[in-house]
Amino acid sequence: MEEIEIIRYEGERRTTKMDVVAREVPFTINLNGTEFVTLLASPEALEDLTIGLLFSSGLLKTADEVQNITIDEEKWLADVSLVNRDVSSDLVFKRMYTSGCGQGTLFYNAIDILHRQKNESKLEVPRKNLLKLMAEFNSSSTGYKRTGGVHYAAVSDGKRIIEMRQDIGRHNAVDKVLGWGVLEEVNLADKIFLVSGRVSSEIVLKIQKTASPVLVSRSAPTNQGVRLARQTNLTLIGFARGQRMNVYSAPERVKN
Amino acid sequence: MEEIEIIRYEGERRTTKMDVVAREVPFTINLNGTEFVTLLASPEALEDLTIGLLFSSGLLKTADEVQNITIDEEKWLADVSLVNRDVSSDLVFKRMYTSGCGQGTLFYNAIDILHRQKNESKLEVPRKNLLKLMAEFNSSSTGYKRTGGVHYAAVSDGKRIIEMRQDIGRHNAVDKVLGWGVLEEVNLADKIFLVSGRVSSEIVLKIQKTASPVLVSRSAPTNQGVRLARQTNLTLIGFARGQRMNVYSAPERVKN
Repeated sequence: MEEIEIIRYEGERRTTKMDVVAREVPFTINLNGTEFVTLLASPEALEDLTIGLLFSSGLLKTADEVQNITIDEEKWLADVSLVNRDVSSDLVFKRMYTSGCGQGTLFYNAIDILHRQKNESKLEVPRKNLLKLMAEFNSSSTGYKRTGGVHYAAVSDGKRIIEMRQDIGRHNAVDKVLGWGVLEEVNLADKIFLVSGRVSSEIVLKIQKTASPVLVSRSAPTNQGVRLARQTNLTLIGFARGQRMNVYSAPERVKN
Repeated sequence: MEEIEIIRYEGERRTTKMDVVAREVPFTINLNGTEFVTLLASPEALEDLTIGLLFSSGLLKTADEVQNITIDEEKWLADVSLVNRDVSSDLVFKRMYTSGCGQGTLFYNAIDILHRQKNESKLEVPRKNLLKLMAEFNSSSTGYKRTGGVHYAAVSDGKRIIEMRQDIGRHNAVDKVLGWGVLEEVNLADKIFLVSGRVSSEIVLKIQKTASPVLVSRSAPTNQGVRLARQTNLTLIGFARGQRMNVYSAPERVKN
């Protein structure tokens, strides 16, 4: 966990306080000298994660098959060699790679990182409008209420929800609403995005593609989600429920 | 959504009823004739999903760049061609592929599907033990309480929690606890798994690798998670909270 300074709104009360967010790190597993997968993970129990992923991917059955494993907690890197397994020539391996990286991963390319620009939008949104929007967002989440297994993403002009999409995947829900905007040729740069799920760095990167200045979530952000939002001056709001919300970055766009 | 028959326990009351679960489908996007990614998604708004994923992956900026898109809702397949983009020779594309498949994907290999066996474990667990275990599981989820951004997975002998792992990723948390079991050479085939997150087909496939007969979640399963559990006679329990739980498959292992 990482401790960061946030602004918390509870009803009319605005407090600057320290809060904790979950850490995420990019963790790469090299298998017999070849990159197997890079995934975002919490930085604990990385040996368990490495062996468990190889196990659940069908690449090993018992600990005896592990010839050597080293975990580098500075570079977030695992080097594993398995006994008697020539993975480079293994056809199954290719399928598994695809599977492995479906853990909720992965990096956007270097261009994303290099071309990060400060968001200079002067958009301002009254706190009350945000709470009203989230109330509308939550009451429209009918699939979640019925099945408990769906995430939502919506785009708003700051006054009302314009469009909303749902998916079992948190990333997919965001991509669906972005795809709607692209297809309808909507100017997304002056819109606000609302999401039901956690805000990891991947979600922030997706939203940044639109140049939108405000992202509001019902759930928590990760430390990297917050870092990326701060670097680019995106207003990131989490735990927006009832009369409460936490502002993690660029709070000047939220008017009390 | 899909309607299925489940057994619901509420306190002492046991009811057989119809309930709805979220659907998941494997959806493949072919880009300029090459497979770009296969992901698990909800089967709606697939054109939005396709365009949004290409947009958030940096492969297109506006709808004008789409030369053609067709969605096949029987094969769950999108064929997209983009104007002026030779993706096959595009180095960025390779990175993006990795990113794209991090949506919460993907297929385990064909061997997994072919070799599926019925779980023949005679293990039985009293309902009260399961509720007690989940109460212990929930009260141990301290990271979630503090940050709201963490998933948990635990292994139990049916009486107490033996080991527990946490991660920002639902898949990672399961892999961590599996990795612990492999490294410690624990017999997982007579254990019970507890998870905090949603149970999609991928989670069921991971647990099936252990031959464990019981998987309990605080959250919802998807339709494919239920289907896979039923096919292999894994006891799948969802929404295990307070005095309540839903049994989706192999209910004979739950004793009232």
